[in-house]
Amino acid sequence: MRYFIEVSYHGQAYHGWQIQPNAHTVQAEIQSALLKLTGQSLEILASGRTDTGVHARQQFFHLDIPLLTDPQGFLYKLNGVLPDDIALLNIAEVIEGAHARFDALSRSYEYHITQRKNPFGRDLSYYFTPELDLHEMNRACQDIIGKRNFQSLSKVKTSVNNFECEITAAAWRRNNEKLIFYVSANRFLRGMVRALVGTLLQVGMGKMTLLEFRTVLESRDRRSAGPAVPAQGLILSGVKYPDTVFKGNS
Amino acid sequence: MRYFIEVSYHGQAYHGWQIQPNAHTVQAEIQSALLKLTGQSLEILASGRTDTGVHARQQFFHLDIPLLTDPQGFLYKLNGVLPDDIALLNIAEVIEGAHARFDALSRSYEYHITQRKNPFGRDLSYYFTPELDLHEMNRACQDIIGKRNFQSLSKVKTSVNNFECEITAAAWRRNNEKLIFYVSANRFLRGMVRALVGTLLQVGMGKMTLLEFRTVLESRDRRSAGPAVPAQGLILSGVKYPDTVFKGNS
Repeated sequence: MRYFIEVSYHGQAYHGWQIQPNAHTVQAEIQSALLKLTGQSLEILASGRTDTGVHARQQFFHLDIPLLTDPQGFLYKLNGVLPDDIALLNIAEVIEGAHARFDALSRSYEYHITQRKNPFGRDLSYYFTPELDLHEMNRACQDIIGKRNFQSLSKVKTSVNNFECEITAAAWRRNNEKLIFYVSANRFLRGMVRALVGTLLQVGMGKMTLLEFRTVLESRDRRSAGPAVPAQGLILSGVKYPDTVFKGNS
Repeated sequence: MRYFIEVSYHGQAYHGWQIQPNAHTVQAEIQSALLKLTGQSLEILASGRTDTGVHARQQFFHLDIPLLTDPQGFLYKLNGVLPDDIALLNIAEVIEGAHARFDALSRSYEYHITQRKNPFGRDLSYYFTPELDLHEMNRACQDIIGKRNFQSLSKVKTSVNNFECEITAAAWRRNNEKLIFYVSANRFLRGMVRALVGTLLQVGMGKMTLLEFRTVLESRDRRSAGPAVPAQGLILSGVKYPDTVFKGNS
């Protein structure tokens, strides 16, 4: 039986989601908890990887395991074996062949910036003091809505050769003393959100005009974009699936 | 010239506010920053001490220093020398003889409890899963409003011999997945808020009746009260002074 499990994690202590030799990763931590609980080596697969230090408020992975008589009880026990910085939120049976990565319709990220020194939540935001023109940054956001090639915002080292993403939402808002960027797309390229935020900050500081921003997007050259912002401000905030992947909804 | 400085700190890394030999404290950190910035050994005095691991959203201390031509610039530079977990928020000139401890009219604390595993803000709340009857806990809170002897909620090791405090507000509320206790008084005894919360949790779990709670208060015996809750959920949230201590308001 295949299950989708919804998970939230604080990325600070991890070398990202994806399992790799000699590194502390979220996937390895969950698989090791599954081994402890079930005695079986079970492999899980997420909607997508998150990089070193990046957080997730809502991530999904799928797991193949014999039918559970008490899925909620299983989740509760698994949470008990996991460290405090990883919390399993929900478990749901899915239809045969449902896939956490391929069936995801969209992913959403938030990037958090604090402009005033704040002892709380330092590990969940980027402390960045220059004055920013949010209106100008939001005008630039209008240019990235829609389907287009985002190679200039992708890490050069990447295994993909399709750089097209469809961005459905991108906007900055003020939330008390925080600036929060929200972006949603069908898919993201490696390092794309952090490069995008870094480039939008150039616009916000007046170091890049809207015309230059458009030129960056057209260039397909990562060197033309701004520097990537630090990982600790980035949060995978949500992943959407069609209702039909869940059992009972099909 | 005497100044009041408003400060916020994350208590996790500190053995409380008060300077002491061979310990990492908030007061020592600020005095060492002052020494770096001014070249002078300056002593500061806070509205009150906070214990090991306790946070402050708003604490005040006073500082005697020659008249500053640019107090905001001074604060900015001092913030730059201080670590990320201590933030100075404001500076204000006060009248001669104004005293951060003796002139404080009231102190307020919050205690944060999370009932669901949450990877974010783990260092700012107490993870406590038993079901709680908030209504019953709030009924118990009614019994502590007013001026009374709180010796049964004070640490036994204490230098004070006056156990009377006047509590002006005490209540629990739900805030999303958090339970937050708010309490305000003219003064608090050593360990009082954590012992009070621990005792109210006994009431909330149905392990102590309202009548027994009243008996605890009357007993003046710390052993009759509940166990103290952990420090990481406790935040000094505010300190109030009369307007007249500030220059220009007298």
